[in-house]
Parts: sequence; C-alpha cells; structure tokens
Amino acid sequence: MKPSPFAPSLLPILPPIAGVKLATFATGIRYKGRDDLLLAVMPEGTNVAGCFTRSLTASYNVIWGREHVKDGKGRVLVVNAGNANAFNGRYGKEAVERIAAHAATLVGCTKEEVFPCSTGVIGVRLPDDRITCHFQTMMNHASPSAWEASARAIMTTDTFPKLSSRQATIGTATVSINGFAKGSGMIAPNMATMLAYVFTDASLPAAILTPLFKQAVDRSFNSITVDGDTSTSDTAIMFATNQAQHPSISSIADPVLTSFTEALEELLMDLARQVVEDGEGITKAITIDITGAASEEAARKIGLSIGNSPLVKTAIAGEDANWGRIVMAVGKAYEAIDISKLNIAIGGISIVKHGELDPSYQEALLIPHMKGNRIHIEVDVGVGKARSRVLSCDLTHGYIDINADYRS
Amino acid sequence: MKPSPFAPSLLPILPPIAGVKLATFATGIRYKGRDDLLLAVMPEGTNVAGCFTRSLTASYNVIWGREHVKDGKGRVLVVNAGNANAFNGRYGKEAVERIAAHAATLVGCTKEEVFPCSTGVIGVRLPDDRITCHFQTMMNHASPSAWEASARAIMTTDTFPKLSSRQATIGTATVSINGFAKGSGMIAPNMATMLAYVFTDASLPAAILTPLFKQAVDRSFNSITVDGDTSTSDTAIMFATNQAQHPSISSIADPVLTSFTEALEELLMDLARQVVEDGEGITKAITIDITGAASEEAARKIGLSIGNSPLVKTAIAGEDANWGRIVMAVGKAYEAIDISKLNIAIGGISIVKHGELDPSYQEALLIPHMKGNRIHIEVDVGVGKARSRVLSCDLTHGYIDINADYRS
Repeated sequence: MKPSPFAPSLLPILPPIAGVKLATFATGIRYKGRDDLLLAVMPEGTNVAGCFTRSLTASYNVIWGREHVKDGKGRVLVVNAGNANAFNGRYGKEAVERIAAHAATLVGCTKEEVFPCSTGVIGVRLPDDRITCHFQTMMNHASPSAWEASARAIMTTDTFPKLSSRQATIGTATVSINGFAKGSGMIAPNMATMLAYVFTDASLPAAILTPLFKQAVDRSFNSITVDGDTSTSDTAIMFATNQAQHPSISSIADPVLTSFTEALEELLMDLARQVVEDGEGITKAITIDITGAASEEAARKIGLSIGNSPLVKTAIAGEDANWGRIVMAVGKAYEAIDISKLNIAIGGISIVKHGELDPSYQEALLIPHMKGNRIHIEVDVGVGKARSRVLSCDLTHGYIDINADYRS
Repeated sequence: MKPSPFAPSLLPILPPIAGVKLATFATGIRYKGRDDLLLAVMPEGTNVAGCFTRSLTASYNVIWGREHVKDGKGRVLVVNAGNANAFNGRYGKEAVERIAAHAATLVGCTKEEVFPCSTGVIGVRLPDDRITCHFQTMMNHASPSAWEASARAIMTTDTFPKLSSRQATIGTATVSINGFAKGSGMIAPNMATMLAYVFTDASLPAAILTPLFKQAVDRSFNSITVDGDTSTSDTAIMFATNQAQHPSISSIADPVLTSFTEALEELLMDLARQVVEDGEGITKAITIDITGAASEEAARKIGLSIGNSPLVKTAIAGEDANWGRIVMAVGKAYEAIDISKLNIAIGGISIVKHGELDPSYQEALLIPHMKGNRIHIEVDVGVGKARSRVLSCDLTHGYIDINADYRS
C-alpha cells in the first residue's frame, strides 16, 4: 500500500495519562510480523462514554458496547485488528463474552466494564482463544507510554498511525487528553472501520462525559467522509480516569469546563483530519465550511452532501473549480437555504454572490489553489447563524484501484 | 465519448400518438451539427402530470413545471439541450416566461399550458430569442413520427437515444404509450439531468394520470442510480391526449386500468434501464431485488443504499462477489431488517442464509456470473412482504476519467 501523500514525517510523543497502562501483541491471526492486539487497562473508578455506528448490521462488539457504555464504567479496552468478528452468527456474540469475561477476571472488574472491539474481515469466525491466551503476558508488560505502539496495533489499511494529545485546565489543575484512531474507507475483506479511543485523567462523571464526548464526536468524526459508506464496527470510546485533582463538575454548562471542551474538540478534529488524510486514494484534502445555516445539524448535512458527492469529489481530483456541482449538492441536502443569498467561495475567492455568479470572478485566479493539495470550499446558505466544518477527500483512480482489486 | 457497451444495435420505431406532433431544430447555441431543440404540440384537452427533482437549487423551469402541472392541462413541450437555464439569476425566470408566452401565442393556448425544459450548463444565460425565433418554422414542419429525432435532440452526454413504446387495452380500446428519455450522471458543465417525456392517446383525467404516473416513476426513475447525485433539472412529464375512445375512468383502482398501469410501468422501467445502461463509465449493469421488506419504500431505500455504495460498486467493477459490503450497505439504510433471517444471493447463488454464511456457498461457482456484464443481487431482509427493484451500475476508472477531466 502506497503511503498517503499526507502521511506525517514525525509522530507526536504522547505523555502518560495517570492510571492508564497499554500493551500490544502479535497474535499472528491474520497479519505476520506486526502487533495486532491492544489491551488498555484503566484504574478503578474510571468513567466511560461511547459513540457507535448506527448500522443495523453492526457487529456484536458494537451491540455489547452500546449496551454497557450506559453504565458509565470502564476498566479494560481490547482491540484486535484483522478480523471484524462481524456477521459470523452466534460466534461473534460468544467471542465478545469470552474476551470480556477473561479480561474481567484478570483485572478484577465486572465483564460489563470490558470493551472488546474488532476490525477487519467480515463473516469469519474470530479465534478468541488466540487473543485471551495473551492477556496475562500483556498485563505483566503493560506500560504508561505505549501510545504509538497502540495506534499501530489497531491499524488495518491505514498507511500511518494517528495520534493526538492536548492539555487543558480545569480550575487550577492541568489535565491531559490523549487519543488515537484508525481510518476507514473500506470494509471486508480489506478491512475497514473507524475506531477512536480517547483517555483523560480528568475527573468527570459519565453524565458529563457522555454529552461532552457526543458533541465533540458530532463535530469531528461525524463530520468527515471518505466515501459515505458506514462500517458495521465504527466505534469511539472515551475513558476518564478521575486521577486529576480539581473541583467536581456537576453541569456540562459550567464555564470551568470551557478549556477542556475546546481541547477535546481540537483533539478529535485533529484525529478526524488524519483519518481523512489517509483516505483511500486521496490526492487532495477538502475542507468544507458551511455558514448561515438554520442549525448546526443542517449545516453538517449540507456539508456532507457536498463532501459525499462523487461529482464534486471527481471535479476536485481533476483540479476543476466546478461550482455548478456544489450548487447541485447544496440543493440535494434538502435543508433550508435562501437561494438569493447563497454565497460560494473556493480558496477564499468569491464565485457565487447573492445567488448569482460573482461578476468579479475569474476562473484563472483559482488555478493555483486548485493545483494545491488542500482545497477549501466555503458556502453560506443565508438563512441563519449556524455553522459546521466537514472534511472530505477527492475521488480518484487510486480509490478504484484499491477497492476494485479482487481479494487476495 | 466512447459509446456504452450496452448501446443497442437497433432502435425501436415508435407509432404515432393521436394528436401529438413533434419537431426538432439545430439552434447552434452550444452544439454544432446536431438538433438541440424539441417542440412537441398536443391537441386541445390534453391532460398532463409531472414529477420533478426535489432539489432546493432547482432551475426556474422546474419551479414553473411544479406549479403549472397542478392545473392538469398541457399543450406544448419545449426542450433545449446544452444550457440548463439554471442558477443564472433573474434571467432563468425571464427566459422560461418568454418561451412559454411565445409558444402559447402560436399554438393558441395559455402560457401555463406550455412546459419549457432545459438541460446543459449551469450558470449561463440562455439566449431564449435563439429558441423562440424557430417556433413558427418548427410548427410548420411538425410531424407525428419524429420520435427518434426528438430523443436525439434532448441528448447531452448520452451515448445513445432512449426510446420505448407499449400498447395496452382499456375496455375494448387499444391505446398506445410512447416515451423517450435522456440520461444522467453528471452536472454542469458537461451537462446532466434525467429528462423523460411520455405520451398516450388514452383518455385520463389529471386526477387519475397524476397518481398513476407518480407510482410508475417511483418504481422506475426513482429506483435507479448512477452516482447518487441529483440534478437541478430532473423532470418527467406525461401527456394524455384523450383521443382514444374508451369508457371514462373515475378511479385509479378501476380494474379496467390494469393493462395500462402495467404497460406504463414496463415502459418507464425500460427507459430507466436504458438510462442506467448509459451511465458514465459503466462496464456492468446491476439489478438489485429487495424482498421481505416492511414497505415498498423501505425496500427501495435498502436497494438504493446498496446501489449507491461506492464500495459495492467498485467491488462489482472488480468482479468481486464481496457480500460483506452488501451487508454493510443494508445496515446503513436504517430500515427494518431481521438479521437472523437475512438472505443474500448473487447470480442466483445463495451466499448468506438466515444471517450466516451459507455452508453450501463456494465462491468459485460465482466467477462466471461476476465476469458477465449483468449482475443480479437479491436480498431478503426477513421482516415483511414488500419488494422493490433498483437498477445501478458499477463505479469504474471510466467514471473518474469522464468527471475529473478539466472542462474544455
């Protein structure tokens, strides 16, 4: 697999998060010569929040996660790469339950506090005994610094590991947030799925953590698209270890949380950007800013309609500032717009102003921007004050090559 | 433009429809050496029904059509190819009104009985005087047999004209239905839009024609997809000239209409199939049959989720019977399914049975079907009795070539 042109030359080094220990292992189930199993152990009292794929053909891991995240308690994360444990009948359910039970016994927690995740081939039985047999060794070697190894262990078709870290203040305390993710863009058999895991030492009850995380996920992972397809295993989970010393928080609206909320959104947006920039066949990254919408959700829907349009994505691959296709994509989002106030700009250059071609627009001025590898589309739909940013990538011959290749 | 591999070697010759006269002309507005303007004139008392794009950035032609089709009366159809008259500010509205007024004066009807349609470049002013100045000549030469010329005059990036005809009985009378269409798959500047026009001599009031046509359009044009994008000008209009002698119809449920309803649906499905089979870059046509759904609408939504999935479409381009991607697409339709009863077959060979890989499935058996150019996917979702058929095509390097080419 050719690396993405956006692959970073340096990876960030993440600090420890008080109480979190990580271990990786090479099970050899599908991959040779690389770690494909992650075990993360959190201290007693750790709170958890999660967002899962809405897919109705979701894997049993997702069904388990959706259910037990409601209790708000999480002590163990297990992720295997190479086998999605999805759509394999009763085996999927049994594997999740055995993995959870085994880890719970070793750590000394309930099995409902264990979150097993799987990514990879659909429809194949997961040999969970080849996972659980390594837990003891992994626990013995778990370390507070294995962040890069963890980000690498969960990769499937990703061409680079995706890591991010931020610090924030809550009152007088400085807290840390670490996260890593793997990208999406295809499904079995060449693997798939967006997975993201976030860890903080902040002391946040699940009732605060859940809406905070959901809003940040909506503004990041739910605002990106590679091909509009939805995996059966998409999962984002956040753990708060409660090790930091700061005043307790009782409301999400508490201004003491502002710094943390901003840092969390920044971190997730950074991971989301990396996921898009590792999109299959990507040659250009697209940032779409929708303003003037009736609601944030409407703005996101319009942005995703543009970001998912094959006609917009191929035009950008061809370095064509084809604004007619943007107009088309705005129209098929079926969200409120005022066409007489519609403005469209690309690369900061106004193209459509008040619903008509801007008389000052000259296509030649846009050529340098269209030839670059980061394209910026701005659309104001003229009905309100809400905004949203959506990230996407172009649709290229590379995407077809990767996805039309016969399974090997 | 390379012709589609599905281009027919022979075109059907359509019979006259009592009262309908057709004329075409080469305006030279955008194309050289081909007719690009159609004028169809219907007799007094002709009823009309229409279905239009839901786009909120629709052209003024669509806004005009949506409004005046409600009156149920239609005497003139005007279609120009090469300029969509869309998103060009007040010019679009003025052009439609001038075209309608001019044709109405010549024919001797109200301007609300004239339906002007445009397809082509977005954002460019339509020189409507170069259209209306030919109306008198066209009326003088209008003929009851210019069906193929009409189908050719409305083409943009289509590689073949799309025509179909059926006969039906209403009581003891034999009635005819003719139709022609142009395909979709891209938008400005290389043209776009699905346009379809249907004509019958049957005597049907607008109150019958409208629901009849809408249902047939839902089962045909609203059940096909090339890339999931929606044009700003999609239009389907049906005219009933009331020239046939048969008992009057007062209810859509009247069994005397059965033959007509079936013939109309067959004809529209035939045109819809031709539109898909001229999809940009197509190498394989895909028929998706959804059964066991809670409603026909749910079945269509599941079928379109499969038919629009880039991962399914690229897998088929690569001749890969990648059923995991079909499971994924079923899950992201968010319609009721019973996963324990889910069945999937390709080319008549069972792959998933009762939600698990069919033990008798051998991928090798599917190779001949996947190498063919018509792929048949069957999915039973196990919750009801409703069904729907969706037509799609594969996603290929050809699609990228056509749509990523810089405008010339």
